[in-house]
Amino acid sequence: MIDFCQFGAGRIGAIHAKNITGHPNARLRVVVDPDRAAAERLAGRHGAAVGSQAEALADRAVKAVVIASSTDTHADLVEAAARAGKAVFCEKPLDLDRSRAEACVAVAEECGVPLMVGFNRRFDPNFALLERQIRDGRIGRLELLTITSRDPAPPPIEYVRRSGGLFRDMMIHDFDMARWLLNEEPVEVFATASVLVDPAIGEAGDVDTAVVTLRTQSGALCQISNSRRAIYGYDQRIEALGSKGALRAENVIESTVSFAGDDGIVSDKPLHFFLERYAEAYRRELDHFIGAIASGAAPLVGGSDGVKALALADAGLESFRTGRAVRI
Amino acid sequence: MIDFCQFGAGRIGAIHAKNITGHPNARLRVVVDPDRAAAERLAGRHGAAVGSQAEALADRAVKAVVIASSTDTHADLVEAAARAGKAVFCEKPLDLDRSRAEACVAVAEECGVPLMVGFNRRFDPNFALLERQIRDGRIGRLELLTITSRDPAPPPIEYVRRSGGLFRDMMIHDFDMARWLLNEEPVEVFATASVLVDPAIGEAGDVDTAVVTLRTQSGALCQISNSRRAIYGYDQRIEALGSKGALRAENVIESTVSFAGDDGIVSDKPLHFFLERYAEAYRRELDHFIGAIASGAAPLVGGSDGVKALALADAGLESFRTGRAVRI
Amino acid sequence: MIDFCQFGAGRIGAIHAKNITGHPNARLRVVVDPDRAAAERLAGRHGAAVGSQAEALADRAVKAVVIASSTDTHADLVEAAARAGKAVFCEKPLDLDRSRAEACVAVAEECGVPLMVGFNRRFDPNFALLERQIRDGRIGRLELLTITSRDPAPPPIEYVRRSGGLFRDMMIHDFDMARWLLNEEPVEVFATASVLVDPAIGEAGDVDTAVVTLRTQSGALCQISNSRRAIYGYDQRIEALGSKGALRAENVIESTVSFAGDDGIVSDKPLHFFLERYAEAYRRELDHFIGAIASGAAPLVGGSDGVKALALADAGLESFRTGRAVRI
Amino acid sequence: MIDFCQFGAGRIGAIHAKNITGHPNARLRVVVDPDRAAAERLAGRHGAAVGSQAEALADRAVKAVVIASSTDTHADLVEAAARAGKAVFCEKPLDLDRSRAEACVAVAEECGVPLMVGFNRRFDPNFALLERQIRDGRIGRLELLTITSRDPAPPPIEYVRRSGGLFRDMMIHDFDMARWLLNEEPVEVFATASVLVDPAIGEAGDVDTAVVTLRTQSGALCQISNSRRAIYGYDQRIEALGSKGALRAENVIESTVSFAGDDGIVSDKPLHFFLERYAEAYRRELDHFIGAIASGAAPLVGGSDGVKALALADAGLESFRTGRAVRI
Repeated sequence: MIDFCQFGAGRIGAIHAKNITGHPNARLRVVVDPDRAAAERLAGRHGAAVGSQAEALADRAVKAVVIASSTDTHADLVEAAARAGKAVFCEKPLDLDRSRAEACVAVAEECGVPLMVGFNRRFDPNFALLERQIRDGRIGRLELLTITSRDPAPPPIEYVRRSGGLFRDMMIHDFDMARWLLNEEPVEVFATASVLVDPAIGEAGDVDTAVVTLRTQSGALCQISNSRRAIYGYDQRIEALGSKGALRAENVIESTVSFAGDDGIVSDKPLHFFLERYAEAYRRELDHFIGAIASGAAPLVGGSDGVKALALADAGLESFRTGRAVRI
Repeated sequence: MIDFCQFGAGRIGAIHAKNITGHPNARLRVVVDPDRAAAERLAGRHGAAVGSQAEALADRAVKAVVIASSTDTHADLVEAAARAGKAVFCEKPLDLDRSRAEACVAVAEECGVPLMVGFNRRFDPNFALLERQIRDGRIGRLELLTITSRDPAPPPIEYVRRSGGLFRDMMIHDFDMARWLLNEEPVEVFATASVLVDPAIGEAGDVDTAVVTLRTQSGALCQISNSRRAIYGYDQRIEALGSKGALRAENVIESTVSFAGDDGIVSDKPLHFFLERYAEAYRRELDHFIGAIASGAAPLVGGSDGVKALALADAGLESFRTGRAVRI
Repeated sequence: MIDFCQFGAGRIGAIHAKNITGHPNARLRVVVDPDRAAAERLAGRHGAAVGSQAEALADRAVKAVVIASSTDTHADLVEAAARAGKAVFCEKPLDLDRSRAEACVAVAEECGVPLMVGFNRRFDPNFALLERQIRDGRIGRLELLTITSRDPAPPPIEYVRRSGGLFRDMMIHDFDMARWLLNEEPVEVFATASVLVDPAIGEAGDVDTAVVTLRTQSGALCQISNSRRAIYGYDQRIEALGSKGALRAENVIESTVSFAGDDGIVSDKPLHFFLERYAEAYRRELDHFIGAIASGAAPLVGGSDGVKALALADAGLESFRTGRAVRI
Repeated sequence: MIDFCQFGAGRIGAIHAKNITGHPNARLRVVVDPDRAAAERLAGRHGAAVGSQAEALADRAVKAVVIASSTDTHADLVEAAARAGKAVFCEKPLDLDRSRAEACVAVAEECGVPLMVGFNRRFDPNFALLERQIRDGRIGRLELLTITSRDPAPPPIEYVRRSGGLFRDMMIHDFDMARWLLNEEPVEVFATASVLVDPAIGEAGDVDTAVVTLRTQSGALCQISNSRRAIYGYDQRIEALGSKGALRAENVIESTVSFAGDDGIVSDKPLHFFLERYAEAYRRELDHFIGAIASGAAPLVGGSDGVKALALADAGLESFRTGRAVRI
């Protein structure tokens, strides 16, 4: 049985807490959150205690931590937990600043603790199947990858301001997917972007619609598109063209029921947003983390993956600002 | 918190036990099974005790029972549990003999305990959505209902022999769906059937491929087709044609990933069998039962629903044997 | 070059005339229709003459006739044309009366002329592909066939009155498809039907919604469903389940464009009605007829196919009236 | 009746000739081709004469020309035909050199003859429907356009050498679609490309896999991807995301028949290549041209559209070579 401390009792924290409790070999022991009431509610639901960061990290029974607190606390918590000898699962991003992210990864390495970054999409059953089929050679050499990623509606402006911007906050998931599926590092990034959804996003210094082209050393190409608004729901699709065929992972829909009427055939929308679409992915990523701790194997998504995705996000932002392809 | 006793520690029993444990207001207290080792394994996984029928029903802490034992024990257990004042959830069928089924329903009524029959498909999210849209009038008056229900592979011959036959064992689910969706009792049943999948099924006195036509008083029509073999997986679909349009509930597939190759576009198969396809339905039906106990409301699927579906199965068998439409 | 005389200058006549003209080895020479103005319009469009039946059949240049006139003239025209030594293509049905149909088939045989009946659906590219795959053994032994056939809207009551009724007018196509795909004669027919779409249809002595079960000697089963109304368009689908898999021919849709909006994903409806859906089938059946004349081979759909489909329609009607399965 | 002269008796010429003949108001009068035998074959099939360029253009009965000859003859023929007062339909591109293309457009304008460029995809029923729905405001403001365009297999190297390269030969169609659907000129082009399909294409100085990003003044974005190989067939899809929803035009498939077997559900591939996929589009574009001549209205796709698409192709090539976004 692995005892966990969880930092952060918000929306994503609730999911991780539930998945810890639901796992046969894991248990939620402590919840830490500056919002004491939130911490108590979550801890209460799972038979856990509420504690301070210091108490939790000093507790030798705690073997692992989940960091689901606000982004600006991630790197410090990774380091503190690593120094306390805990296995660390950290929500993305490690930090909005790449050198800070690199530093905390280095600390985890020095301390010899496993560090996993929460790129949940790698654990989505559909994307995982697509990846396995690419790896198994079903489409031969991968030539052209297309990643579509659109949120149903933009986040609050307050969130936008603190988010690090679309490239680091939203597209970072797609950069990670691209690296994972291409199985090769991109060497060139071209980005362009617009403010089309809400002028307030532009006033906050961010963009809401963006497209990126990646190119690897071997010449494989990747197109990513992001939008902060798709009124038909969370649009999460991937296509991979190779020498022997193509793979598509379509959206997961709310039901298989369709209505045939005078205006056409109406089928159901994609699952609304990440909590619904990636529910199983969140469960599987924690399973994976717990399994990695138990077996001593390195987690599939390590700290350096967090840093490299961030490097692509930075390059995307630079390309967007300069109008040039940026070499990595 | 509602404490449960569960009869039966087999495959379907394992599902119900897990759903009881996973429910915030329910708890598995006792497991009863003639196979003591199986009972202990299941009880151990859920922190429950193993007991005899007598002990379990005498235990006043036990408020509800789940009957997931072999079919020939159902009616006796329903009566014994009802007389002990427990709320009763019984897997289908109540009994293979209609008058025996009626008798045990009568006992439950006399005892004033809730009795729910496990027609799990009513709780499948897709079929439930289809039903709600019919009820809400989306297709106007329902005129023609088509139910397709095919197993991936036939059961062992031993199972076939004890099953009561395809009409009572397999199509009974479709009869229940038909009654539920038509929202009107069928008054005429015509059935025909063949042994096409395995001659051994015919030697056991059963059929493996069957089609039925139902007709209601108002003239609505329903076609059901069953096969014990669909090598592409568990085929569970419903179509409803009405005056204002049609609804279709398609199969739930294993993934949204498709492969485009030289031979065509290959998409994924339906979820393999009932444990996979109806996992959520099993969870929701137990939720519903627990909610009904808590609120005092009658469960959506009562004992008389079990009896009426059985009456349709009997009529189907008679029609198949006589070559005539049978009036109910 | 094969010169044609066409009887009937109505809607279906216009299609055949166009297909004759469009064929490199055929030419429309004469049009015969009691409505002289209609005959002239159609003849004018195709550089053909207008003539009387007597003139047309006496014309030795005319090698083949297409009979697309009103149903009550079919059998007489088949006989007259056969006696004049013409190859005969006749729209279905040969006659509403089976013995009359048999008689005219006998005349054609005596005269040694090819007689083809216009069961156009056998020439639909999708159904033809499905049939070829069954024949090639892709699904192994065919066990269960499902034919869905629904018109977008009921015909005028006047048409209903003269039509011979749903079984002989509409379902006769499905009986032909069943015979063709099963590749074995049905030996048992069960039918039931209702008036659900329009009471006036019932007052005219007909039904508007009907389902039929067929059974062959070897035990293969077939379900047919018909409705005179499907407000989402012409619904023409076939499913075939076999020991090694299943085939489905889905509707042909108006476009591949879908709209994703707040209410779901809206895709296009089936092609509206038979003129649109079977445009290619009409072209291919005439191609086939012209090819058969040229090669001397028997057409794929002969006079006896017309008679046998009619026998199934009669049996369906009798079963509906008696409530019993009818043996053929 | 409009009499046509057609230059070019090759594959695409055969299609145009057939569509001219099939049109009620048009007639093929002369075929011109340096390959006399080819000219005679095509002319013979359509009851046309074979002639020289000089004869054909001097023939006052000829009102319109279709230029379907080799690319290097297009601009000269446009000018000669325009000076002879003929309405001109010219296959894309007008010329591989932009200034030459501009010059011939200027000549057509001076001569006051209609000049239409063969961007056939605008006449594909699916894409035309998608465009109409965008124009009608169904998705609100268009924000993000995605054009997927992949050939089933690369052309012969000889063709590649004379083609002007992927951007001018293949992607030019997509540039035209982008301009048409965006309804606004792109102001920025970024392109990257690879040789992944066949090294011989690279040796010929061309690429076989390419992606492009376009940006308009208002900030709308467009992603285009091209590959010379998609072994599952001709992949031609468009997606348009807007403020009120999204539109997708999916591939047109060979049949609606699918097979459900042990390995999944296999549905049919896209129509193989442009001759099949765009057969209806070729017919409609000629219809449109003939209608424009008759009515005196300007054709939907004029000479300047040919020039502007070429400008985008040139910018794409420049961007690919310099690694920078190119402003138009």
